[in-house]
Amino acid sequence: MSQKLLLRALRGEKLQRPPVWLMRQAGRYLPEYRAVRAKGGSFLDLCYSPELAAEVTLQPIRRFGFDAAILFSDILVIPDALSQQVRFEESLGPLLSPLIQSRKDLALLKLEGAAAHLMPVYETVKLLRQRLPEDVCLIGFAGAPWTVASYMVAGEGSRDQAAARLWAYQDPQAFAMLMDILIDVTAEYLIGQVKAGAEILQIFDSWAGALPEGEFQRWCIEPAKKIITRIRAVFPEIPIIGFPKGAGLLYEDYALHTGIDAISMDSTLPLQFARERLQPKLTVQGNLDPLLVVCGGKTMLQEAERILTMMGPQRFIFNLGHGIVPQTPPENVAQLVQFVKQWQA
Amino acid sequence: MSQKLLLRALRGEKLQRPPVWLMRQAGRYLPEYRAVRAKGGSFLDLCYSPELAAEVTLQPIRRFGFDAAILFSDILVIPDALSQQVRFEESLGPLLSPLIQSRKDLALLKLEGAAAHLMPVYETVKLLRQRLPEDVCLIGFAGAPWTVASYMVAGEGSRDQAAARLWAYQDPQAFAMLMDILIDVTAEYLIGQVKAGAEILQIFDSWAGALPEGEFQRWCIEPAKKIITRIRAVFPEIPIIGFPKGAGLLYEDYALHTGIDAISMDSTLPLQFARERLQPKLTVQGNLDPLLVVCGGKTMLQEAERILTMMGPQRFIFNLGHGIVPQTPPENVAQLVQFVKQWQA
Repeated sequence: MSQKLLLRALRGEKLQRPPVWLMRQAGRYLPEYRAVRAKGGSFLDLCYSPELAAEVTLQPIRRFGFDAAILFSDILVIPDALSQQVRFEESLGPLLSPLIQSRKDLALLKLEGAAAHLMPVYETVKLLRQRLPEDVCLIGFAGAPWTVASYMVAGEGSRDQAAARLWAYQDPQAFAMLMDILIDVTAEYLIGQVKAGAEILQIFDSWAGALPEGEFQRWCIEPAKKIITRIRAVFPEIPIIGFPKGAGLLYEDYALHTGIDAISMDSTLPLQFARERLQPKLTVQGNLDPLLVVCGGKTMLQEAERILTMMGPQRFIFNLGHGIVPQTPPENVAQLVQFVKQWQA
Repeated sequence: MSQKLLLRALRGEKLQRPPVWLMRQAGRYLPEYRAVRAKGGSFLDLCYSPELAAEVTLQPIRRFGFDAAILFSDILVIPDALSQQVRFEESLGPLLSPLIQSRKDLALLKLEGAAAHLMPVYETVKLLRQRLPEDVCLIGFAGAPWTVASYMVAGEGSRDQAAARLWAYQDPQAFAMLMDILIDVTAEYLIGQVKAGAEILQIFDSWAGALPEGEFQRWCIEPAKKIITRIRAVFPEIPIIGFPKGAGLLYEDYALHTGIDAISMDSTLPLQFARERLQPKLTVQGNLDPLLVVCGGKTMLQEAERILTMMGPQRFIFNLGHGIVPQTPPENVAQLVQFVKQWQA
């Protein structure tokens, strides 16, 4: 049995202090990351360059000593692998074309090349397992089908995913066909990451928060369950963390009905609820507001302390409620990590 | 005691069928509204023109026979009254300048002219009380301080209100000064609407959903409570509906600790929760997904039926989970209203 701290937390062991890693811990807030990006190439080129992707994955591990590294990649490698064109514009975010908005549009997606397209990502995972310090876990990840579909349908990030939600209402059969494609590709992609060496998986449903309960059940819970069932058929023991961001009152349903081992809490989730309703059943992760790390100092540390005290040293992983934002001062991250590592229950 | 259906629902009476009105029932989806807008003038000019604002408020009442009219206005008349410049761009949404982001910036806000600036809105309310059919209620409204502040700080609508949240973390005393200004002006504005004839008030906290629990308590619950206390000191009986959109697990706290008489549910709120935890304590309103009204037909009516059956004819107001969107076919609204009016428990 691995003695890596994050794996022990996922097994429910009582620890001296919880493990710590932060979503989007590799990225634009780090000067060494910006230096890699300044060498040129698109953002997706970086995701498909094993040496460079491994390097930026390792940067925050060297600098801050996190307990886990998360593969550097993007949730939109999936539509890209399916031949939808994906571009990243610094100020606009991702742009996808052509839009997938009808049964007919589904024919534009090419499934046969997807596996080969994603091979460089598995290479990155292999390099990372060779290069990571032996006490640091490697987390693989993918976007959840609903979140990925919302980009594929709208062609961009959108405030309330109206285009995808409307299509799902108007033609649920066709929308389900898109979701089934994504379920297949995503399950294979995650299995490939585990084969290459990922020790834990996280599924990001970043736009789970705009769906009414029936739609949430159908497009968030059911797809996650199917993906997890497929992964478990190959790797029965692999720990899987789910992140239904913004799901609010539906968080508990997601925690109980998808088959996940741990759930990542966004910053709006009340800790009393997490402690009473989630933590007795699975490991929870979260949920410091990323803006508090921009803020730093006493304001950040007081809230980190409150979270640590409430959630304790068992069945808990310290993290943010969402990804680190680009304007975050790296020294605040250093202070936060040091604080968590020195904390004792 | 008024026998108007909406007032009876707010008093908790058991009815034959629940009252129905829809958020943003006056607006761009109606050709008669677009005809008024086509005559020229800015969006705010319309809000400050009593004859025109009354006319567009009455349009959906004539066309659909709603049980309530809601004053046609905008939550951003408050920053406008405080001398922050507010413009509405069709494609971009509202733009405000200069930005209010520091203690020093607060000096840019001019309180003394605010009351006079809002007089035309009270004129609209007076006209509406004269012109509305006698069985139709008139609802006045305002944006909640947190939501209005998020626009004042960012200068626009923003996905997660990061600018306002960051300022509130970095300098909570200064941010509280902005909130206190908004609490004062909003309370006076709502009292003015009741004096002019509004029979019910709704407070829209459209961006309540991005706040961690401590911030939600401080910037959503406390300000609503203060505003309601002030209104009740003048009008002890006026029914007040709160709408903390997206508040998820914090909905119940808002319902119980602000002093509201009714709570408006966004479309993500599970009905079982609403029935068990909210409805025993206060009247609930909602929560059909506005995109289902774009969709129309059986898909829309099945969900409307489910909501009606779950929530029943007592302590319930049929509405959407958010405002009608511009691409909504008016005939779908007609079908929905007719369906609710013919429904029987």
